[in-house]
Amino acid sequence: MKLYQRPGFPNPARIHIVLAEKRLARDVAYVDVDLIGAEHKAGPFLAKNPLGVLPVLELDDGTLLSECTAITEYLDNLDGNPVLTGRTPREKGLIHMMQRRAESEVLDPVGHYFHHATPGLGNALQAFKSQDWAGRAEWGEREGRRAAEGLRYFNDVLRAAPWVAGERFSMADITLLAGIWFAGAAGIAVPPELDALHEWLGRVSDLPSVKGRGGQQMLPEDLRRLGF
Amino acid sequence: MKLYQRPGFPNPARIHIVLAEKRLARDVAYVDVDLIGAEHKAGPFLAKNPLGVLPVLELDDGTLLSECTAITEYLDNLDGNPVLTGRTPREKGLIHMMQRRAESEVLDPVGHYFHHATPGLGNALQAFKSQDWAGRAEWGEREGRRAAEGLRYFNDVLRAAPWVAGERFSMADITLLAGIWFAGAAGIAVPPELDALHEWLGRVSDLPSVKGRGGQQMLPEDLRRLGF
Repeated sequence: MKLYQRPGFPNPARIHIVLAEKRLARDVAYVDVDLIGAEHKAGPFLAKNPLGVLPVLELDDGTLLSECTAITEYLDNLDGNPVLTGRTPREKGLIHMMQRRAESEVLDPVGHYFHHATPGLGNALQAFKSQDWAGRAEWGEREGRRAAEGLRYFNDVLRAAPWVAGERFSMADITLLAGIWFAGAAGIAVPPELDALHEWLGRVSDLPSVKGRGGQQMLPEDLRRLGF
Repeated sequence: MKLYQRPGFPNPARIHIVLAEKRLARDVAYVDVDLIGAEHKAGPFLAKNPLGVLPVLELDDGTLLSECTAITEYLDNLDGNPVLTGRTPREKGLIHMMQRRAESEVLDPVGHYFHHATPGLGNALQAFKSQDWAGRAEWGEREGRRAAEGLRYFNDVLRAAPWVAGERFSMADITLLAGIWFAGAAGIAVPPELDALHEWLGRVSDLPSVKGRGGQQMLPEDLRRLGF
């Protein structure tokens, strides 16, 4: 299988962690897509994903999977032991609930803030991010505040349990981690008083599948080029 | 188990169809929540779902599940035959991809349009929908146009396959159907030229789990009270 991706970006990073957790990293060929040049918004890539977002997993039979949750479901179930997406109905329910909250309350609003209230990834890409819209910056700022509220919500969650969906590391932790890395790159820091979130960040950063990746590696070369 | 819900509203409707497909409708106690009076934004309900949205499924052991995808994963896996969410890794991947697209390209933008560019569900609820925000109507209108584009995308999908995720009815069809019902209630009609989408609507409306529900039943009493 092939993974269309861009190293260091938050959504591809989610799949890199999944591949490491499932010991599948060497079974994949990696195809880099030029996000800064908006390659993912042009014809050839749109034929692979009409929504024009990364990552996309192409299976050996030509099936194209996009959306991180969908790719994770596929990869996690290949060995019949879906530890990241849930082994029982109750685990599946809790993990999908918390991973969706990590998207809707942290990762998505951070993305909206980054692309609408900051210069984002520069001009080539901003043309696809409604640069012309009058309410753009205001909406982006609102989304940034919503992301900050989301971080406080997850701090409460992590005061009650060691991992986002309860007693085990799961897809929900991966989504929240990608959201927090993206937040850091976008200039939204985790406030020091969110103690449980900081403790969890330490714990998750020590996992072999995560170690060596992280906020400090997020977007560095691309963002330096853009003057961040 | 208990389902906290409101009959006729799009997200609870998704779970009603799932319960009918899985022959679980009689195993659930239904608890109506006063959406118009914003009961779901007040303390007791927020203790069940801090995000303040319906539906919520409460299991007999007290576990609280929200987010339709999560509730569907739980219910669909109870009998060990997850026909709605996918029986193989590839099916799971395709269904999750298409259900997420049905949310992000139709159901979610319709909701944004309804709550921001129209009077929505009236004053009690609008206080929680950022009524004060200057760019609100403009953003809502943009989202309405995005929903219309989403309908065209799914027409293309349904020209190539009988169901949203391929050869079988799935969770992805249920999400798109809820989005189209909500669109109708919000004043966004499916254009007549979207022939494959209309054919699919006829096919899906004939399913026993769907028959008797539908756009014409969506929000009727509540919306009449609000002058729609």
